Amino acid sequence: MPSTGILPGLTVDDADQFESALQSFIDSRELPLYKMMAYHLGWMDQNGEPERSALQDRSHGHLVLAASKAAGGDNASAMPYAIAAELVHNFMLVHEDVQNANTERNHRPTIWWSWGPAQAINAGDGIHAMARISIFEQRNADGPASDPRQISMAIETLDNATLKVCEGEYLDISFQERANVGVEEIFSVARKHGALFGATARLGGIAAAADSSVLDALTRYGTATGTARSLNIDLKALWPDSDSERDDVQRGRLQSKKKSLATAHAIENGTPTTRRRLGEIFMKRVLDPADIDEITSILDETGSKSFAENHVAALTEEAISALEPTGFPTRHKTTLAEAARLIVSSA
Amino acid sequence: MPSTGILPGLTVDDADQFESALQSFIDSRELPLYKMMAYHLGWMDQNGEPERSALQDRSHGHLVLAASKAAGGDNASAMPYAIAAELVHNFMLVHEDVQNANTERNHRPTIWWSWGPAQAINAGDGIHAMARISIFEQRNADGPASDPRQISMAIETLDNATLKVCEGEYLDISFQERANVGVEEIFSVARKHGALFGATARLGGIAAAADSSVLDALTRYGTATGTARSLNIDLKALWPDSDSERDDVQRGRLQSKKKSLATAHAIENGTPTTRRRLGEIFMKRVLDPADIDEITSILDETGSKSFAENHVAALTEEAISALEPTGFPTRHKTTLAEAARLIVSSA
Repeated sequence: MPSTGILPGLTVDDADQFESALQSFIDSRELPLYKMMAYHLGWMDQNGEPERSALQDRSHGHLVLAASKAAGGDNASAMPYAIAAELVHNFMLVHEDVQNANTERNHRPTIWWSWGPAQAINAGDGIHAMARISIFEQRNADGPASDPRQISMAIETLDNATLKVCEGEYLDISFQERANVGVEEIFSVARKHGALFGATARLGGIAAAADSSVLDALTRYGTATGTARSLNIDLKALWPDSDSERDDVQRGRLQSKKKSLATAHAIENGTPTTRRRLGEIFMKRVLDPADIDEITSILDETGSKSFAENHVAALTEEAISALEPTGFPTRHKTTLAEAARLIVSSA
Repeated sequence: MPSTGILPGLTVDDADQFESALQSFIDSRELPLYKMMAYHLGWMDQNGEPERSALQDRSHGHLVLAASKAAGGDNASAMPYAIAAELVHNFMLVHEDVQNANTERNHRPTIWWSWGPAQAINAGDGIHAMARISIFEQRNADGPASDPRQISMAIETLDNATLKVCEGEYLDISFQERANVGVEEIFSVARKHGALFGATARLGGIAAAADSSVLDALTRYGTATGTARSLNIDLKALWPDSDSERDDVQRGRLQSKKKSLATAHAIENGTPTTRRRLGEIFMKRVLDPADIDEITSILDETGSKSFAENHVAALTEEAISALEPTGFPTRHKTTLAEAARLIVSSA
């Protein structure tokens, strides 16, 4: 997916600070395991030589900093949480690449494709542990980030979100082998996937020692944003932006018969003929490009594309409204609203 | 591997308390993801019907309780940590079964074999998150386990150990494609794998609010025990107990050319002919049973079996000596010594 670049609410300097904090955290460790992580994050080639690949999406890390700023926090306190959220997201990507057999991500071979599935599963597990270690390393720092109560709240936030995403993944994978997946089921999975952005925005609030009503508003904002993004990822896989072809991650989702809001809508609302035809396609073990073309043309006819687009737009507005009770200064509400739109649209 | 049964230091009632606390924690959640976890842990069959498979190894959970007792703690405070250590161990087993393509564990089909690798990777990730959630759920309880400082120390202990195991896994996997793996390299991997038992024993001390010198002694005790067990797992894979055949997990390690202390010793110390013959065998993509028979007969000749056995015995004694400075009552030192011997020998 395209990078969000520098998220609204952050300066170039903020983004640079984040990137070097993230890189120093990984580079502080010597073993080859960490070189694989550095490769995945875009700073090294497969031989361990420094490389600067095109800026990857860092919307999780950036959103922690933006939410913290809006809640009156500073970058220094928010940085370990920003690193943690970005790493949790990335551990999931590394595992997803094995699960969906993606050969490329960000136009580079995936870890499993280069080092094999066993190393990729292990690298993902290591990134998962590293996410929390980033938070612990701040224990001896000054400020709210060193308060054990806050550390424990931050980690619990991340773990609950991770578990929600795993619950969603279970369903998402089990839907591959079913044709009859309903709209409500798809929403339920998307909301679970949205939990990580919810935790991400909340972490920014925790870093700023915001009160619990602000934390809850940030969670609602992030969860709605993440839910909309998750649904939009499926939409973009079916209908890529006009100037681009499907990438390997998008193809992987479709060929493995992952269901989406649009397909669920067509299955619930299509004519018997439409439904039978979709069922026949989904009965194949793996879909080929002609099958995918047929699916998209059916979904255009059934109005399922615009049904899904409307829901993505509504969820984005829901995210923005969630900020109202926070009492954040207007300019911060505006930049967080822009951030939500960008996170969703860059899916 | 055989179960340690009830670990020395625990009564039947302690073990029952642990088993029901672990089961209630998983059963408290409704989704099918948790049924897969319950299957893996031995309380359900693949259709989600209750089943009581033979008691699985619970040495991680039991060791937390035993160490806590020795340090003057009670089961109630130690229970969430016991659950956490047991779940971290089990998330690793679920992922290892995918990595080594094990079809069976504890005489039952593995998660990946029954539900596919994508679900198994996801189930492991979920168990990994659940491990810490067990600790957080105690925040509202009474006693030391509800102190955020202690919670944060416990989680950091687990994460640092998990990362060490991942570092070890990286090396272990990378050794599969090399013949020339030295004795020191094998020790380094085994010590990293031993970190989880080190963290496990330490968690018992944390639950009992033991002072830092006791915590360090418990870490040394657990790490040496875990290191010895890890080396003994390799020995038992090569030379199973006289009355048993190799199980699927043992075969998987050997066929995938995982290296062991015994093979490293033979490669470093064998005659040129021995070394060349081992190199030829390890050049095959996957080993067959005849290759494995040839390896074990070479390792008998080079004295590599007894070399490895002596190191396992020495590490077990090192574990037991580590308890000396703790000031634990003698009967607790004795039961922890017995526990170490059993954990190693049941590898």
